[in-house]
Formats: sequence, structure tokens, C-alpha cells
Amino acid sequence: MKKKKTEIAEQGMESGRLKIIPLGGLEEIGMNMTAFEYGDSIIVVDCGMSFPSDDMLGIDLVVPDITYLKDNLSRVKGFFITHGHEDHIGALPYVLRDVSVPIYATKLTLALIENKLEEHGLTRSTKRKVVRYGQTINLGCFRVEFIRTNHSIVDAAALAIYTPKGIVVHTGDFKVDYTPVFGDPIDLQRFAELGRKGVLALMCDSTNAIRDGFTMSEKTVGHTFDLVFAENADRRILVATFASNVDRVQQIINTAYKFGRKVVVEGRSMVNVIGTASELGYIKIPDGTLITIDQLKNYPDEKTVLITTGSQGESMAALSRMASGMHRKVTITSQDTVVLSSTPIPGNEKAVSKVINELSAKGARVIFQDTHVSGHACKEEIKLLYSLIHPKYSIPVHGEYRHLSAHAELVKQLGIPEENIFLLHSGDVLTIDEAGAAVTDHVTAGGLFVDGLGVGDVGNIVLRDRHNLAENGIVIVVLTLDRGSRQLLAGPDIVSRGFIYVRESEDFMEEAQEVVTHAVESAMKKGNCDWGKMKAVIKSELSDFIWKKMKRDPMILPIIMDV
Amino acid sequence: MKKKKTEIAEQGMESGRLKIIPLGGLEEIGMNMTAFEYGDSIIVVDCGMSFPSDDMLGIDLVVPDITYLKDNLSRVKGFFITHGHEDHIGALPYVLRDVSVPIYATKLTLALIENKLEEHGLTRSTKRKVVRYGQTINLGCFRVEFIRTNHSIVDAAALAIYTPKGIVVHTGDFKVDYTPVFGDPIDLQRFAELGRKGVLALMCDSTNAIRDGFTMSEKTVGHTFDLVFAENADRRILVATFASNVDRVQQIINTAYKFGRKVVVEGRSMVNVIGTASELGYIKIPDGTLITIDQLKNYPDEKTVLITTGSQGESMAALSRMASGMHRKVTITSQDTVVLSSTPIPGNEKAVSKVINELSAKGARVIFQDTHVSGHACKEEIKLLYSLIHPKYSIPVHGEYRHLSAHAELVKQLGIPEENIFLLHSGDVLTIDEAGAAVTDHVTAGGLFVDGLGVGDVGNIVLRDRHNLAENGIVIVVLTLDRGSRQLLAGPDIVSRGFIYVRESEDFMEEAQEVVTHAVESAMKKGNCDWGKMKAVIKSELSDFIWKKMKRDPMILPIIMDV
Repeated sequence: MKKKKTEIAEQGMESGRLKIIPLGGLEEIGMNMTAFEYGDSIIVVDCGMSFPSDDMLGIDLVVPDITYLKDNLSRVKGFFITHGHEDHIGALPYVLRDVSVPIYATKLTLALIENKLEEHGLTRSTKRKVVRYGQTINLGCFRVEFIRTNHSIVDAAALAIYTPKGIVVHTGDFKVDYTPVFGDPIDLQRFAELGRKGVLALMCDSTNAIRDGFTMSEKTVGHTFDLVFAENADRRILVATFASNVDRVQQIINTAYKFGRKVVVEGRSMVNVIGTASELGYIKIPDGTLITIDQLKNYPDEKTVLITTGSQGESMAALSRMASGMHRKVTITSQDTVVLSSTPIPGNEKAVSKVINELSAKGARVIFQDTHVSGHACKEEIKLLYSLIHPKYSIPVHGEYRHLSAHAELVKQLGIPEENIFLLHSGDVLTIDEAGAAVTDHVTAGGLFVDGLGVGDVGNIVLRDRHNLAENGIVIVVLTLDRGSRQLLAGPDIVSRGFIYVRESEDFMEEAQEVVTHAVESAMKKGNCDWGKMKAVIKSELSDFIWKKMKRDPMILPIIMDV
Repeated sequence: MKKKKTEIAEQGMESGRLKIIPLGGLEEIGMNMTAFEYGDSIIVVDCGMSFPSDDMLGIDLVVPDITYLKDNLSRVKGFFITHGHEDHIGALPYVLRDVSVPIYATKLTLALIENKLEEHGLTRSTKRKVVRYGQTINLGCFRVEFIRTNHSIVDAAALAIYTPKGIVVHTGDFKVDYTPVFGDPIDLQRFAELGRKGVLALMCDSTNAIRDGFTMSEKTVGHTFDLVFAENADRRILVATFASNVDRVQQIINTAYKFGRKVVVEGRSMVNVIGTASELGYIKIPDGTLITIDQLKNYPDEKTVLITTGSQGESMAALSRMASGMHRKVTITSQDTVVLSSTPIPGNEKAVSKVINELSAKGARVIFQDTHVSGHACKEEIKLLYSLIHPKYSIPVHGEYRHLSAHAELVKQLGIPEENIFLLHSGDVLTIDEAGAAVTDHVTAGGLFVDGLGVGDVGNIVLRDRHNLAENGIVIVVLTLDRGSRQLLAGPDIVSRGFIYVRESEDFMEEAQEVVTHAVESAMKKGNCDWGKMKAVIKSELSDFIWKKMKRDPMILPIIMDV
């Protein structure tokens, strides 16, 4: 490691400080966004959104809290995007409203971003530039080089960020694929060259840091398709996969063509991505292979393939609608073979099982073995990258804490001292200068909930209420009082939702009404005319009654109208 | 198959009909309960509960709907329980209230049932009898023999049910373990003998019917423990596993003893099961090995092991409380090694990940590879059983539809004709007589929700409301009207819960109030004094307003008080 230090020094140490700040969720929430700061310049790598976890009730999506960027707006120079997955590009439409700076990305990545900008009417206001592998962008104090990698979407890039303190390499999401379906293998030579020059810090993908060995080549899935098509020659074949996995779709099309089948692409996001990829030449579809879903009926079942979305069991996606019999144009029968070309993302296992159960119940043959490979580097690939790059500091990125932590274990075995490994939390400010590297500060960061058109107006209190409502329902008590005469003019009326089925519980509701009436009347007798106190009494009496009767704890909401 | 038919005939065919009716959820909901009916006799195999799935908001557990048993109460003779897991015994306390008939089970199974009966005050009223392997119980038209199997809980049994139509073999949950930790291997010879006699139908465990090969012996996990203890000799070790897996706990204790460590058992259900198993001699704990949690401090960390519950990430279990720092007596540090000796049950993956992330963030080493084997038979074991038993009919049980369906595929390969394989749904009545076997009827069956003390009073309408509330919250509009003078006396007041954070949305709420006031006043002007119609107008106007403003769709509940 000594040698590297000297080399870094030779590149010209300045007295300033480099700051690296993860602004998305580095841990469980997978929004990727990292700010790099030096002097008057801030650049941002990736701008991802995250899908809500089960406990974020009613939330549509989660975007990073960019308070820090807004507070330092004049210094923010641009976004560098590593690849076109939602957890790296999805928050752009939300973030660009406040931070309108140029976007730099490879061709397909930028094309996918443009689809988003169009949807949100942001095409005009946003500057953007296509970057080729090997090309370098100068922005403020930084110079950023795009390096070819492999991933489950084509045109993925790692970034070499040249800072006044040294080179930081950010891998983005990557795997090592020596035989990719499209384009060339990851540019290992360039990583080696950078390693020779001396790399200050490596920020490397941790997703598969708990998995031994090497991730298999995407090409291996193609062989499985050949086998499946051969063994199901007399049946219709449906393949569900990720819309963004252009190489996977290419391989399905290759196999379909080989077996003389026509191909239908179904599902909005699938049609969009394949359309874009096809226009740009990232996918080659032989003439006459693609047909529309309405043309399906003109061909025998065993001469067709449907490529669809919904491999994660998403309830509104094409496959789920087919499985539950809700798809308007495709009916699943016992003559169908359905291939799930994916692995359930953690949290989606149940939804995927549900789809498989429904397909099985309709008699379809369902295949999900050897039909998918990961897009992320396993242990041996991570070790390879470290061996080429030899960074001084290791900053594991992209993964849950357990993945970051496994990554750290691995790196220790490679000889990087523990004090040079940084497991950062969102908002941590890692400062690197002559004295070394340390987390010196913490800024606002994390997730903002998007619900409908609102960004950030649903917070923890609202979510807590939704949880209570979901678990126990709500009991509303309304009464009209005459403040002057202290008389109960109307009510108490008790209305419940999500609590019990009222028609079968009339006695119970009547008893509850008596409890409230009694509570109100005795409070009034005592001269209690503070409606706040009155509500508290109603709440506690009714709550006790319900708990004693049925061991349940609904939200109780007393509303007093006074006339 | 011909030979078997003759033999069955020789056993004495009668003119009656055998009915087999799954009453629990054979499909996604894993409550096991099957009724066997012939003439005036009904016997029931297993009586399980199920834990609610994510979409059963606020539900504590699910028990089978036993309308059919209640309608035929006089004919129900008894329960035969295959083993002591919750999905086979858990509903007994609820079902016995209505169907109080004797219970037959092996020793440990019955002891675990007795713990439950005690909790529910049902010990006195319930007859029960311990059955040994090989022993046979005569009940009505049926004779039931208990046959030794292996499973992830000791004392598991298959049942040979001798009916006037022939023998039905029900495997319960099983695997083939040639080297079990406690007791003997599964009684394959007896299955072979029955096969020779002729078996009418086989009801066989499908859980692992999608997995190739053989399930490994429980003993293999013991070797992993030895390795983990050897490699973590200088650290405290915590092992989380299923409370009911007595053999697993035995192996942890064996290894701990070998390495001179003291053992603490933590978590209520773990303490209960181990206590019961130990009293009955199903687990052997060397003297002086067990210590209490309060004695932990008297021993160096590297001389102790904690065996705890919570391997499924259950939020209230011991391990989760330790991971989140909420456990009163155990603090996790970087000197701890935590072994998860389990596989996440589908749906629990996220919860388990959360626990691992929290443990990793506290610096603990977390191990979960090779630390668990399944308790269910894989493809080769299922094939073995069919080859020994050679049943005429195959009725795959225990699994989701996709497992039952994979099981059916397997059985077809073994030469059982498709028309002799029955994938039953809950409530299906499979009738077997001289003419053959067919589903001839359907009776009420399925799940009843238990919420607090209520069984079945939360139904689909209540759940639907809970879903709406969870996704979007509720907006309540209250107003007091004078029916006579058609005047608005008080309100409209608008109160919301789980919708938006009100303090930051005062303008919005004011606008909403204006919308409602306008709607009410114009309705009154038109002479509309039908409160039902008035509510409908308020609901639709406010709903439109909210959708336009924020693309959200909360539940809207107008309440009109009249004076």
C-alpha cells in the first residue's frame, strides 16, 4: 500500500478536502445517489428511486431527500449515471425539479432517462450528454471517465472520478462477463491501469458479496432457453423477465427464431424498453419475427412465444393478469409452458408464488430453474477487481448492511486494513485529506415518500396511523352537544370501518353506545365542558370496553360538534 | 396396478362410499385438516392453524371453518394428529369448543397438545390417548395405524387408515432420514408391507416436490455446528432455530458440551418445548450444561452458547429483540457469532434480512450457510415412497398448488395414470367406491380469521376496509343539520387519519371544507333532505376534489347528525 500513497502524492496533493456523501439509502432502501464534493464543486453519481417496502403503506415510491443538494445548489455541477435501472435513474424527474443540472450517461442509459423526462415534461429544461466508454468529462474540480462493465442491462459503466485528492473508482452495479450477449467484456485492463497509477478509494457493488464463486455468464441462460424450447416444442411458450434486461430478451428472440416461432412482446414497460433498445441498435430482431398480440390467433400455439413483464409477481403486470384470468387477450391453458426468467427480489417471494400457483391451477407447466443469472459480482469477482485496482480505501456500496459487512470481511482478507474500510450510512460525510479519511459530519439524507402527486407530505405520523388503521380499524364516535345548556342534542353515533362486520354485531355496538352515553353524561354532570377532556374520557372508556370484550385495540376517534 | 385392485376387492368391498374431504386450506393457507367419512363414521386427521399472510391485516391467526363437522357432529369420532407442528395441532383449542371428541397422537405430539389445552382451559373436557408406532386404533368404521416417520420434530407419524374400501396411507409431513438424531429411521418396511397388501390411496407430503434429489440428514447440521464452534472458539455463540426442532437443539447442546460451553435457552416457546421434550426423555442434556440467562455473567463469553427463538425474524421473538437492542438481558457486540439455523419460510425473507442487517450493524458475525436441512421429502424420497406403497390413487397433500402440481407430474412419471391423481381444493368431496374415485361434491371449508377473542367476526368486508384504510387513510366529514329548518347547525368538520399530515396542509383542509359546505348548501337549496343522498353527494364531490388535487383516493366517511 505504501507505493500507492507516494503515487497519489505525486498527482499533486492540495490542501482541500474531498467529501463523499451517500444521499440515497446505502442500507436497506436501495436508492443510489452519492455526492462528491471538493471546493466549489459537487457532482452526483446516480439518482435512484426505491419501491416501498411492505410497511410503507400506500406509498407509491421513495425518492432521496436532497435537502443537502438544495442547500448547496450553486455548487452542484451535474449528474453522472452509471446505468439505466430504476434504482439509479428513477428519482431524476423528482430531483431535477429542484436541481436542474446536466446529466451524463451512456447512450442506452440516457435514452431510458429521456423516456422518463418526456413523461414528466422535463425534456426541454434538462441538459444531457451521451458519453462513450473511455471518454472523460471535466466538471468543476472533477474529471470523470466512463469505463465499460457488464450488468443485467447493457451500456453499464463504472466511473473513475479524478479528484484533487486522487482517483475514486465507483463500479456502479457490475459483474464480470467474459462472454456477454451484446458488446464487450468489462474493461479489466483499464481497471488494472488505474490500479498501477494509484487509486485512492474503490466504491464497489456489494449485492452478491455473500455469495461464493463467480456469477455465471448471461449466455448460459440462452442455453437453457434452447433446452426449454426443444422440450416444449408442441406447446405455446411464455417467458416473463425484467423489462430492462435487453440481453435476456435478445436471447429469447434468438431461440424463438431458431425454432421458427413468432414473438409477441407484452407489457407496457417491456414494449417501451425493447422499442428504445431496438431503435438504438442494442437488440437485433430478425425481420418478420415480431408480431402483435392481435396477430397471435393467426399462428398455431406451438409457433409462438410471448415475452412479458411480471416476473416479480407485480399484481398489475401482464403475467399476473394472465395468471388470474384478467388479461383481455391471453388465456392460460394446460397447453402453455411459462418460463420465469428471474429470481424473486427479496420481499416478492410470496407474490411470485401466488402467480406460479395460479398458473399451475390452470394446468400450465411452469419452469424457473436455470433460467436466470444475476447481474452482480460474486466474491471472486469482487476480489478480482480489488486485486486489479489496489485501492487505499474501500467503501462498499449497493447492498443491505449485511452485504456491505460481508464485503468488508472479504476486503480485510485481501489485506486492506480495517481502518481503511468505511461502511457508510446515508448522510455520512466521509472526508479525505492528507491526514487520512474519516466520517466527520452527517447531513440530512434518506427517503421521501411519494404518494400520488405529493412528495414528502406523508411522513411517519401518517404511516403510523395507516398501520393502526390496517391492524385494527377505526371506531368513530360523534355527538352534538349544546355548549350552553350542557345537553346532548344528537348522538352518540358510533361508526366503524375495518373493525367488525357491523350487521352481525348490533348488540355490541349498542352496548358501546351506552358506554359512551354514560361517560358523556357523567362528565357533563361534573361540569366538564372542556371538549378535549371529554374526548379523552370517551376514548379511554370505550377503549377499555372494547379490550375487555374482544381483546382488540382499534383507533378511537371522538368528534364533538357543538351548537 | 391390476393386482392391487383384486387385493382390495379381497379385503371385502362394501356398497358404501368412502369420502375424503380436505377442510383446512390444501392450497396456499397451510392449515392441515382432512375428514374421512364412511357410513356413520367421520374421523379427522390433523387440526392445524395458519399464520396470516401479509394481506390479512390485523388478523392474529387463521383456523379451519368446521361448519361441515358441526353439521355432522354426531358422526365425528375423533382426531388423529400426525405430529406436533402448529399447522397440524394449532386449531385444536378453537375446534374442540364445538367438536369435543378424543385426540389420538404419539407421546410428544400429545404433550405439546396438552400445553395448548392447558392454556385454553380445555384439559378436563378433552379425552386423549397416546399411541405408539405400530399400534392401531379402532374408531367407527375405521382402523388407524401409526407408522414411524422422520420430520423436523420428533415423534412424527404417518397413518394407515383401514377403511371398508381399502387402505389409505397419509404420510403427514415426512422425510427419509437414515441417521436420525433421536429414535429410528422411517419405517420403510411397513410401507412396503402395506404396498404388498394393496393400498387404495396415498396422501403424500408435497412441500419439497419441486426439489430434486434427497433431503440431507439432520445429522449433517451437527457437523456444521462442530465446525462453527471450532472456528469461533474465542467468541460467544448464539444459535437461533425453530422452538419445535428438538433434534436441532439436541445437536447444539451436544456440540456445546463437546466444546465445554454452558447453554442458555431463551424465548418462551423454546423454553416450553425443550422443557416438555426433556421431561419425556426426547432430549438429553448433560448435568451442569444448562444455566439461566442471569448466570451468563458468571462465565466468559467464549464459554457460553445461547439457543434462542426468532430465526424467522418474528418481531417479538428473542433474537429480533437482541438485534434491535431491545432485549433486557443480552447485548449483541462484535464479539458475538450468530448462527441462523433455519431457512426463511416464504414471506419471512425481508424480516430475516432485517435481523441480519441489525446484527451486522452491531458488528456480530452472522452465519446461515449449511446450518439447516429441511424436514420434508424431496423428489427422490417421494418416488421411493410411491415405489414401496404402489397406491391406486394419488392425492398430493401439504403444499401450495404449485407443489401439489409438481407432485402430480412426478407421480405421472411413476406410471400412475392421470385420472387416478387428485389435486383437491379445500371443501372438495372425493368419493371412492366400486365405480372409481371422483370429486362429487363441495362443502363449506376454508379459513376463519381469529382477531383477538373473535373467531370469524372479521370477514372480507372488514379486511377490504382495512386495506383501503392502510393504503389511503380515511377522511371523515361531520355535520349537524336541523332537519326542520334545513339549516347547517355545526360543521362541516373534516378530520383525517392516515391521509396527510394535517399541520402542513391547513390550506388544503380549508379548501376541502369549502367544497363540502358548497355541496351541502346547494343540496339543501334543492330541497334534498334524504341524508343518504346527501352523503353520496358529499362523498363524490370531496373524492373528486382530492383526486384532482393530489391523485389520492382515501376512504371518505360522511356523518350527518340531525337535531
